[in-house]
Amino acid sequence: MDTLAAYKEHLREIGKLESALSLLHWDQRTNIPRKGHAARAEVIGKLTKMVFGLSVADELGEYLEKLQGADGLSEVDRASVRVVGKAYRRHKAIPPAFYEEYAVASSRSETAWEEAKEKSDFQLFKPHLERMIDYARKFAEYYGYDESPYDALIEEFEPGMTSAELKTIIEPLRQDLVPFIKRLMEEGKRPQDGFMKGTFSEEMQRELSLKALSAMNYDFDAGRLDPTVHPFTTTIGPSDVRITTRFLPDNILSGLASSMHEGGHALYDQGIPDELRWSGLDEGASFGIHESQSRMWENLVGRSRPFWKFFAPIAGEIVPQLSGIPAEDLYRAANIVQPSLVRVEADEVTYNLHIMLRFELEEGLITGKIDAADLPELWRDGMKRYLGVTPQDDAHGVLQDVHWSSGLFGYFPSYMLGNLYSAQFFAAARREIPELDRQIEGGNLAELLAWLRRNIHQYGKMYEPKELIERVTGEKPDPSYFVSYIVDKYSDVYDLS
Amino acid sequence: MDTLAAYKEHLREIGKLESALSLLHWDQRTNIPRKGHAARAEVIGKLTKMVFGLSVADELGEYLEKLQGADGLSEVDRASVRVVGKAYRRHKAIPPAFYEEYAVASSRSETAWEEAKEKSDFQLFKPHLERMIDYARKFAEYYGYDESPYDALIEEFEPGMTSAELKTIIEPLRQDLVPFIKRLMEEGKRPQDGFMKGTFSEEMQRELSLKALSAMNYDFDAGRLDPTVHPFTTTIGPSDVRITTRFLPDNILSGLASSMHEGGHALYDQGIPDELRWSGLDEGASFGIHESQSRMWENLVGRSRPFWKFFAPIAGEIVPQLSGIPAEDLYRAANIVQPSLVRVEADEVTYNLHIMLRFELEEGLITGKIDAADLPELWRDGMKRYLGVTPQDDAHGVLQDVHWSSGLFGYFPSYMLGNLYSAQFFAAARREIPELDRQIEGGNLAELLAWLRRNIHQYGKMYEPKELIERVTGEKPDPSYFVSYIVDKYSDVYDLS
Repeated sequence: MDTLAAYKEHLREIGKLESALSLLHWDQRTNIPRKGHAARAEVIGKLTKMVFGLSVADELGEYLEKLQGADGLSEVDRASVRVVGKAYRRHKAIPPAFYEEYAVASSRSETAWEEAKEKSDFQLFKPHLERMIDYARKFAEYYGYDESPYDALIEEFEPGMTSAELKTIIEPLRQDLVPFIKRLMEEGKRPQDGFMKGTFSEEMQRELSLKALSAMNYDFDAGRLDPTVHPFTTTIGPSDVRITTRFLPDNILSGLASSMHEGGHALYDQGIPDELRWSGLDEGASFGIHESQSRMWENLVGRSRPFWKFFAPIAGEIVPQLSGIPAEDLYRAANIVQPSLVRVEADEVTYNLHIMLRFELEEGLITGKIDAADLPELWRDGMKRYLGVTPQDDAHGVLQDVHWSSGLFGYFPSYMLGNLYSAQFFAAARREIPELDRQIEGGNLAELLAWLRRNIHQYGKMYEPKELIERVTGEKPDPSYFVSYIVDKYSDVYDLS
Repeated sequence: MDTLAAYKEHLREIGKLESALSLLHWDQRTNIPRKGHAARAEVIGKLTKMVFGLSVADELGEYLEKLQGADGLSEVDRASVRVVGKAYRRHKAIPPAFYEEYAVASSRSETAWEEAKEKSDFQLFKPHLERMIDYARKFAEYYGYDESPYDALIEEFEPGMTSAELKTIIEPLRQDLVPFIKRLMEEGKRPQDGFMKGTFSEEMQRELSLKALSAMNYDFDAGRLDPTVHPFTTTIGPSDVRITTRFLPDNILSGLASSMHEGGHALYDQGIPDELRWSGLDEGASFGIHESQSRMWENLVGRSRPFWKFFAPIAGEIVPQLSGIPAEDLYRAANIVQPSLVRVEADEVTYNLHIMLRFELEEGLITGKIDAADLPELWRDGMKRYLGVTPQDDAHGVLQDVHWSSGLFGYFPSYMLGNLYSAQFFAAARREIPELDRQIEGGNLAELLAWLRRNIHQYGKMYEPKELIERVTGEKPDPSYFVSYIVDKYSDVYDLS
């Protein structure tokens, strides 16, 4: 077997084990009976270790060395060698003993965070958080970086992105969105949504989600929809991409949005071609690009006026109390803005401000400009400044998210980038499909999907985010698309003159 | 690490991979979307190969050699070394190249069988069947045997059982059951079951099954019930034993029986103690013993008069048309006997005759007394002789079962042994729990389960079937319990004088 064939075979081995792991994880959050958890953790631990072993195997290193810069490789193979090689070097950079130590500390830290959140007592969590920050800094040192240690951490989620660049992206957001939200709240007219109050059965909500997902052309022959507690999408293989969603009995828009969000993630993975399977490229270009797909379908499509023109009669048929409500009223009710304390409940206007605050704080923690002890105070200040609200306790403040407790620093920005990219991509799609709004009004979402497939999905992880965005839109990542989208849409929804 | 610890760790590695495999298989038959099958087959192939590699690993052989006959081993460890050692030697006996050749031929043969069955054309299947018989004989030679090559094959499913012994077990069945069925059909009074005709929703049938499984004390915190096409039970771990069942829209008894049957399998595996987990002993003593548990709950409990006294009001509440039907009528309707062509649809009286025929034929095929070409004719003769019915074509005759097409010879007898064992076990339980019938009438099935747990389940695979049966009942396997059970019960149900 020549090197390339051996290399591909090695990746296929990893891919097969990862597919099994994905199913084990999915089942753990959908079907597993209560008493099955203990053994499942051990099974997952075993397979994870095997995958890790293969991903740092010496023979993989040898293949990569021979293939880097080799002649005659296809574009796909070159991209594979680049992406896998980078992951290999990052993995290899971490001493195994250090990683094991971190894994234990991280697990303890998560447990401490749970207790601290329950008791709303930051002090219980503080020593663990300090330890996690320490680990994160050491990871950054092992990985290496040019300017900021934070860059080494973002790299995991958003290849090629840096702290400095994030700041230039965020600036216009801060400048424009903070005053816009203030104006919206003070001068805007909040839409009516009394007709949305009520109790909605799970069957009804499921039917509504299925209609939306069908309209999105989600392929149910290559996936399924199940209920869960914290919605997620699992890719078990390119032809088996499963969505989960959560239906709240008293809020029918929440489950629909969750299904469309996860559906957006799933369409991306369903669109990755079979030739990339198990090549290291059979996933999204980055967390931010992946989030751009989920947010586009959830917000730019699912919360748009054309979509509700199409969807109002369907909703009215499934949900008796919505029957006869004008599409315009449903559209407006789906777009209520409310500055609030908790990120995961935030609307699309205020969401990014939650992320901005987290980015500023975690960047400060990693570079040493901020001390963990000052976090609760800095959190309260930031919320007041950006959103005009103040958490009554740390459970609804600095302790609300799990990420930092397990040492995940550099992850939060992907949520914001997803929003920004989604607006920039959608603007490009609209330029190239002049009939797009009319199509959506008619329930025809196929051309948009085809555009995403052609421009984004088919490449999997072949290009880094910035290169992909330039290829698709002809421009660098640019936050102004998102700002314009928000300002235009909500000035209209809130009747700002 | 000493040898025992290394040995146990090796088995735990195998156990964890097998747990992942079980989930992959379960999902394949319950949840997987249509397009997910191709990649799933590859993932399963990979993990199966890994498990096989570990189960014939040289280091395992070394551990076993050191541990066989070592001092100071616990009873569990000694049993583990014996059971794992036997499997190791059997695996090692087969040259890998031969096994791979067989695997390919077997897969082709199954495909040919499918086509042959569809076209009801035995000639299409004959060359493949001949090849499979040939492979089976070679397997038998590799495994080794004392008297009959068929013994080497039964060993896989029913350790310690031989062809000669099976014949002495079967003889009373043939002598007593064949004329009894004839008498039943000619002189007996077939119970009324007009009230069973109708169409029953899946929700209703599911509720009925859940009630029965709850009464059986199936632990839903360590399992779940899902619909499928061909019902089965999957043990993902001792605390995760999942049942599947099939609901026919026009036959409510079928789904109930299927759920109780699989529930019986599941109770066995749920009852295997945690200390046996991943030791090579965390499964049933044999296929026959496992089947004894499923058949006991399906038939000796689920088709008994006391059970229907308890279950009639429950059934009446869930199924409107059964409301008010006397328990005695429901009991009788659940016990209609009808000689028929297809094994999987057979009632408990005629079922064993289907197996007897298969045993006679496959034993003849392996020992060379029967030629594959003569099978269709021999099948028709046998069905006529035993059951008085003649298949109109081979699809409903010799081609009906998948087993032989993939080279499974020696498997069929376990179905029959399960029936025989179940009657023998139940008679012992009844001796030791004099109140058993009264308890069942009251819906109290806990003491029966406790008895099974104490006498059978807790030992997993520690004892071979014969030893286990003697420990539990004080007697050798004895078919007369089954014959008496059938003759007594059905003489009554069919009003034979």
